[in-house]
Amino acid sequence: MADRGAYRWEREFLKRIWIGVGGPPVRLALWDGFEVGGPQESSLGRIEFRSPAALRRLLWDASLGFGEGFSSGEIVIQGELPGVLTSVMQAMRRLERERGPSWSLRDWLVRRKGHSLAESKSSVYHHYDLGNDFYRLWLDEQLAYTCAYYEDPRFTLEQAQVAKFDHICRKLRLKAGDVVAEAGCGWGGFALHMAREYGVRVRAYNLSKEQIAFARQRAQREGLADRVEFVEDDYRSMTGKFDVFVSVGMLEHVGVDQYYTLGRLIDRVLSDGGRGLIHTIGRNVARPLDAWTTKHIFPGAEPPSLSQMLQIFEPHGFSVLDVENLRMHYAQTLRHWLQRFDARAGEVLRMFDERFVRMWRFYLAASIAAFESGYLQLFQVHFNRAECNDVPWTRADIYEHLAGPSGAASKSDGLLRSRLTAAQETPRNGY
Amino acid sequence: MADRGAYRWEREFLKRIWIGVGGPPVRLALWDGFEVGGPQESSLGRIEFRSPAALRRLLWDASLGFGEGFSSGEIVIQGELPGVLTSVMQAMRRLERERGPSWSLRDWLVRRKGHSLAESKSSVYHHYDLGNDFYRLWLDEQLAYTCAYYEDPRFTLEQAQVAKFDHICRKLRLKAGDVVAEAGCGWGGFALHMAREYGVRVRAYNLSKEQIAFARQRAQREGLADRVEFVEDDYRSMTGKFDVFVSVGMLEHVGVDQYYTLGRLIDRVLSDGGRGLIHTIGRNVARPLDAWTTKHIFPGAEPPSLSQMLQIFEPHGFSVLDVENLRMHYAQTLRHWLQRFDARAGEVLRMFDERFVRMWRFYLAASIAAFESGYLQLFQVHFNRAECNDVPWTRADIYEHLAGPSGAASKSDGLLRSRLTAAQETPRNGY
Repeated sequence: MADRGAYRWEREFLKRIWIGVGGPPVRLALWDGFEVGGPQESSLGRIEFRSPAALRRLLWDASLGFGEGFSSGEIVIQGELPGVLTSVMQAMRRLERERGPSWSLRDWLVRRKGHSLAESKSSVYHHYDLGNDFYRLWLDEQLAYTCAYYEDPRFTLEQAQVAKFDHICRKLRLKAGDVVAEAGCGWGGFALHMAREYGVRVRAYNLSKEQIAFARQRAQREGLADRVEFVEDDYRSMTGKFDVFVSVGMLEHVGVDQYYTLGRLIDRVLSDGGRGLIHTIGRNVARPLDAWTTKHIFPGAEPPSLSQMLQIFEPHGFSVLDVENLRMHYAQTLRHWLQRFDARAGEVLRMFDERFVRMWRFYLAASIAAFESGYLQLFQVHFNRAECNDVPWTRADIYEHLAGPSGAASKSDGLLRSRLTAAQETPRNGY
Repeated sequence: MADRGAYRWEREFLKRIWIGVGGPPVRLALWDGFEVGGPQESSLGRIEFRSPAALRRLLWDASLGFGEGFSSGEIVIQGELPGVLTSVMQAMRRLERERGPSWSLRDWLVRRKGHSLAESKSSVYHHYDLGNDFYRLWLDEQLAYTCAYYEDPRFTLEQAQVAKFDHICRKLRLKAGDVVAEAGCGWGGFALHMAREYGVRVRAYNLSKEQIAFARQRAQREGLADRVEFVEDDYRSMTGKFDVFVSVGMLEHVGVDQYYTLGRLIDRVLSDGGRGLIHTIGRNVARPLDAWTTKHIFPGAEPPSLSQMLQIFEPHGFSVLDVENLRMHYAQTLRHWLQRFDARAGEVLRMFDERFVRMWRFYLAASIAAFESGYLQLFQVHFNRAECNDVPWTRADIYEHLAGPSGAASKSDGLLRSRLTAAQETPRNGY
């Protein structure tokens, strides 16, 4: 707590903040007890600025100041964290519908990080090399660090991550013998799943040394090392010819200025009858990521709008077959991650420090809010070569396995169905 | 037949044409019997120029000259018409992948028709006011003049048009009591279907006098006039508040320069929790329609690329939920139309003249070729307001009715299923 009362301008500024974010149902408070905000009784929570500096830093950039203040403990939120942040972002969105997005002083003055090879490497190391032990604390068994697919809303995180793998494989109509390129493979869970469950060969690329080492060990252990090759390199170095190109959760880091190059790469490596799918966080309208996330969580990250994504496909003769927006599934995935993170916060504290724990809680909760309020989307874009007529006639086959043992489902893959059913009967964690 | 032999430059030009369209498996011939092209034995057909003028007109604009030559009878195609045209367009596409699209002299010199209210009216009258009797000869019973949905590839045209209606209604999750705006309603078949089968109220707009008169009569006859209002006006005059905005086969005529206005209109008329769907012919990459189609068939038409379509949604806070590309379904729809048109060609001849019959056969066959070769796409884009969280959790419910009487389908609409089943048992036409 600061040892002085708030000045008049600080109280005025606090009021302006509340109005400036659209008057959400929360209370804002200063270190001396001064409060503004909506009616107490309908309030979802209370955001307290415990130092004058924490308030002042919002002038430079609101997202940066807010995130850093929360991480340092100078800003404290009472109430359910994702719920409070969601209500603020929803109020901001309503206001933006009338007035357009607001920009900070910092937006105009600071150059954003680029996407050269060196910059991409440093960005990836920043986030993904925090240590496999850290991610193992709160991700699912597969260490799938991307939006899951809750085919049934009651799914556990483990079930939903496997369902995501299968949903993508069904969209791609993977069949035994296909040769698959994966750009940005994380800890290798999806590559191994494709090889194990669909009988395909995979060459998977990732810049993160720790992740690749982990993925190779897993491939060895599962006896899949002859069918899945993990390459520690940038996706731009990809070589070979593939029936399928797939990328789950990498495009966010690629940068829009590289999309033409990415499209040319896909054109180069894809066989004549090839098809592909890109799964990425996106936006309804082009706009840079907030300064706090860019600085502290994902340097260089840039979730694209759909029209930006089309810069990958349109110049290179690809045909978009199917786009699905799974934004609510990412909110649900993040809720599961935050629950697990909170349950293991003591262990995270021993690995890092309090600031790190607060920073990650804020990142996960604010991400829930961003998906819930419609600031972020999750796009799966399925494409093929424009001249290829060997396209799925309808999308009904993607959903055939849901019909149960009788009817149309008798045509679908029995192995997959029985695995999913087994998973439903023996959930491996407690959600 | 011309009464002189071909000059040397004409023979050279013929060779250049064959090479210039990528060397397709067809033969090209001049009026004096001179021929070029692929080997006789693998040739799919023969394109014969019967006059020097028909050949010469290709210099100004190939599509315009070719279409006009075919319509006048100066260019004759031996072989299965859609097959020959498809093989030519597929060869052109292969070549364009290497060299980019080619432009004609005319592309640089002629201003394209715009999309002012007056221009839109004249464009619509040109095509859609050819007479209901004409369209009734070869369209389905509903007079649905847009891409059908062959949920089962064996569907008749009638079944596939109804299946298209239902596919869109399922995507929109139409429910009784919804108020629907339809922009560009044709002969009203879809508006009436929505009102009859889903219990919604519809206000439907169309510029074509003949179509609106027909639609109003049908609404009267079916006792739906109190629930479906047909308005003879431009979509830009739309007023009211609606739960659903839907447009099937109008966007092609809107013009990309009007997309911002269209988005603003949707924003204005859609309720807070509103959703919508636009069904349109599109392209993988922005490019004007060929000169022949623009001049003789659809003045002012402009099938958009997906990134062009996003100019409707991105500036106005909409979220794209689902995009489906049904290009192969349009090829199939057109095959059914061409078969029916050919079967009734004698009647069309009595209504118009030989030139008209040839022109329409060329239009339908060339459209099959354009969809088969990947020049044209068919996009259904499902969207809602970005801040609305009342979104379908997955797309599985769209396909639930296919599962038969047991399993997941027990939840789906029994009425629809039984109607579809009945249609399957008693096909109303002979394909």
